[in-house]
Order: sequence, then C-alpha cells, then structure tokens
Amino acid sequence: MSLYDHIVACNTHDLGRFRPFIVAGERVGWVRHELAAQLERWPEVFDLSGERVTVAGGVGGAEERTAAMAEVCEALAGDGLLQPRRGEQFPVVAAFGDTPLLRLDRAWVPEFGVFAFGVHVNGYVETPAGPDLWIGVRSADSLVDPGKLDNMVAGGQPAGLSLEDNVIKEAEEEASAPAALARQARPAGAITYTKQIAAGLRRDVLFLYDLRVPDDFRPASRDGEHSGFEKMAAAQALRLVDETDRFKFNVNLVIIDFAIRHGVLAPEHPDYLKLIAGLRSGD
Amino acid sequence: MSLYDHIVACNTHDLGRFRPFIVAGERVGWVRHELAAQLERWPEVFDLSGERVTVAGGVGGAEERTAAMAEVCEALAGDGLLQPRRGEQFPVVAAFGDTPLLRLDRAWVPEFGVFAFGVHVNGYVETPAGPDLWIGVRSADSLVDPGKLDNMVAGGQPAGLSLEDNVIKEAEEEASAPAALARQARPAGAITYTKQIAAGLRRDVLFLYDLRVPDDFRPASRDGEHSGFEKMAAAQALRLVDETDRFKFNVNLVIIDFAIRHGVLAPEHPDYLKLIAGLRSGD
Repeated sequence: MSLYDHIVACNTHDLGRFRPFIVAGERVGWVRHELAAQLERWPEVFDLSGERVTVAGGVGGAEERTAAMAEVCEALAGDGLLQPRRGEQFPVVAAFGDTPLLRLDRAWVPEFGVFAFGVHVNGYVETPAGPDLWIGVRSADSLVDPGKLDNMVAGGQPAGLSLEDNVIKEAEEEASAPAALARQARPAGAITYTKQIAAGLRRDVLFLYDLRVPDDFRPASRDGEHSGFEKMAAAQALRLVDETDRFKFNVNLVIIDFAIRHGVLAPEHPDYLKLIAGLRSGD
Repeated sequence: MSLYDHIVACNTHDLGRFRPFIVAGERVGWVRHELAAQLERWPEVFDLSGERVTVAGGVGGAEERTAAMAEVCEALAGDGLLQPRRGEQFPVVAAFGDTPLLRLDRAWVPEFGVFAFGVHVNGYVETPAGPDLWIGVRSADSLVDPGKLDNMVAGGQPAGLSLEDNVIKEAEEEASAPAALARQARPAGAITYTKQIAAGLRRDVLFLYDLRVPDDFRPASRDGEHSGFEKMAAAQALRLVDETDRFKFNVNLVIIDFAIRHGVLAPEHPDYLKLIAGLRSGD
C-alpha cells in the first residue's frame, strides 16, 4: 500500500447504508439500517420516523439516555447482535468539547457511528540524521490489529478526563513514562477519518502529541497492550507505511502526519498536498 | 477577528461568478464572466463555448500558449482591464509538480484563477517558555497589505526553481540569511485557500517551512520588502492574530498552523478541529 492508500482505507464508507442518529435535536451519529430495524423493539426509547433514529423526547437528560441506551445495547449484545460491552464509557457529542448528551460504552460507539476521540503520542528522540520514533508492537491478543506496529502511547478518550490527563495516564500504563516526562508531550494537531467497519462507522478524531524522550529512556508496557518496543528512524517508519501493512490501520496516518510536520516527507512527494488534505477527511 | 474568522476571510468566494479555465483538457483555473466576455476578441486563442474558457486547440505547446496568453493580457492591461505585468512567471498546472501547460505573469494569475504556489518560512528561536517568532514588518510600498506583519521570509514560487532553492533565495533577499542557515529550513506542511479578490480568484498553496535560527541571528531586509523585524513569543503572535488585523491576510493562517504544530494553541480551544480542517480548504 502507498502512503495515500492508507488514507483512502481509513475513509472508505457508504453513508447510504446508514441513517442519521439524532439526540436532543443534534445529529451525533449514523446507524446501519439493519440495526435501526432492531431498534423498533424499543419504541419508548427510539423514534424511527423519517429515515432517522432519534432518541425519544420522553427520554430526557444525559443520565436517563445513558441508562436507556445501555439497557437496549445489553439486550442486543445478549442476542449476539452487538459486541459485548467493554466497560469504558465514551461521551456522545455533536462536536468535541460539547457537554455530553449521553455516554455510550466504547464497544457500541461505532454501532451508533458517534465520534470517538483519542490521543496518540509520538515518542521520539532527535538525532543528527533526523528523529527516531519509539514504535510499540501490539500484543497478540489485542482486539484490533494484534501484532501490528503502533505509536509509543495511544488511547481512547473516555468521558470525564482531560486530554492532558489522559496522555499522562496512558503514557504511564502503556510505556511506563513518569508523569513529569509525559507532561512535556506537546499537542501537535489532529487527524480525522470516517471508516466503515463490520460493527458500523468509526468516526475517529485523534489528538496528536509529540513527546521528545531522553536518549536513555526505554518504554516498557505496564498494561500488556504492547509486547515490546523498537526504536527506528522516522524515515524508516514512513517507508514501512509506504511499502507494507505492518502498522495498525490508523497509526499509518499518525506516522504520515509526523513525517510531514518534521520534514521527513518532502513537499516534492507527488501526493504531498493530497496527503495533507486527506489526513483531515472526517467531518 | 477571531482565529477562525481569518480562515473564513481567506476562503470567501462565489464560484458562480466564474467559469472554468481549461488548458489541454485540464481545468486549471477560473475566469470571471466579465473577463471571459473580453476574451471574445481573440477567437484564435480562446474557445468560449459551453460556459468555459478553453485555450484553443490550435495554440499547441506550452511556449506557444505562453506567448499567446501574454499578448492577450498585455493588450487587456493596456486597456486598463488587467493589472500591469510584474515580470515574474508562474507555472500554470492542474496540480503541483505537473509539467506546466503554460507560464503566466504573476499579475495575471488571479485573473485566470490558477494555482499560485509559494513558500513561507517561520524563522524562530526556542526559549524555555516556548518558541519566539521573527516577524517582518511589510514596507509601506508593498503591493499587498503594506505595513502589516509578515513571516520572516516568504515568496511566490516561480517556474523553474525548486522549493528548496526558492527558500534559500528568498531567505537571502528578505532576511539576509546565509545559504548554510536557510538550508536547515525544515518542510512542515502546507496551507491552501481560495479567496475571491477584485482581480479574480486567489487559489494559493503555501508550502510551510520552520527555520530555527541561532539566538544571535538578526534578520535584515536586502530587497526592501520589509521595513524591519521584531521577535515575539509565538503565543503573542497568535494573540495578535486572534484579536487584531495586523498580520498580512494569509500570514494569519501560517501563524495559526505554527501555533498548532508547536503546541502553542491547545486542543481545548473550541475551534481547534475547525481550524485544522480550515487550513486546508483549497481544492
């Protein structure tokens, strides 16, 4: 796969197979027509008129909506129609930073096509030849892309935690980075994409951080998410993105973005402008 | 003006007032209907059928097209209908890096709504409190935005020069930066926008560079484009963008992009994701 192929892969979807998911008058997601048909069993929770899925007006307030949706999703998961819950609650919003209209278990976020926010941290050291990146190897029992290459630190953004606190928490769990180091992670932008998967629609927003670590720092997994780490030149990581499928699907985009920001990818690359625009293809 | 207002200002246009400009089967620009009506005087150069302006098939080859277009534009400039030529030739292409289909004087680039490529160099020093930017003050007789604040180095991308060589040339002319220093400028991405102006449509692509300069470096204008330079914290430059109209129209966007990439603008800013997407609004 070429660099741009990875961006296309993260943005392949057909909205014709989905209908809008509305909460409190705001379009917060997209539901597969097949799932919408199942939701007819709960007319007190969902209004299914007008080719849309609307949380019924009678279910008022974030807490009540959260409870009602959890009950429905648990029942559907019991029928094998949804994934089992993962025990991590994500906020449901029309835009990042809005007050959550409800909270939804992470497993059901793509089922309702709502935004999933996350943080990705490029751990790197500077060398005379350019930056070296610390790359994680995903453990064999990861739910998504086991065995693939990964950022040093990354994680979903749960409800009720600041981005910075999440970076500090994940850096500790995933790389054993002390808080004093993790606090030096510098926000560096964001990537957005919309990818259709079996479970629905991933509408992901990845907040990006660069964390320059000391030369003698060695990341070590505490939570078992990574089976190991290797340090490689950013140019080499970019080559792997360009020529192989070894990186986790969305980490390809994070590496491309890092390479562009750090001058590792030259503007003479024929897809340079397409890549820059494509890294922000989500809505 | 808020940060986002500057992005809106750079992207305000109404394509309904323009028709496509076609060369060798490729849409390379947009021409105002009023200008298209004037072009009827040269039926041997332009085919005006189908609500489009097409360089006639009889005008074959880049050199012949360049000469024919220059003759037409000189005549229109003589009638006061176009700006006078500036003596700098820009390539006309459907996408950056393509072999030019013709060359057009810089003054007439917006008249035909073709891409204009340029380089903008953020000259900066690192301090414990974050980066300081070297900011130029545009001379009082600048054609565009006289007296406004500017990047340390910026320039249009003429035909027949590499981006890197252009950075070195402009850094020497505009800031007296020696080539050995300018060569350290690191590509850091690009900004695109489409802005309607009296003379037509600016479809600009700015290739961005970061150049970390020594603490004792003092930029000095050689070509008179800047009347002086001042060093200010990037956070202060961003505040000026947010609260004033003191920067040249498109430099506002370059400062916002720099602030995002260097962690000066926090992801908690309510417009963060809109800003990131908006910086690449051009086609």
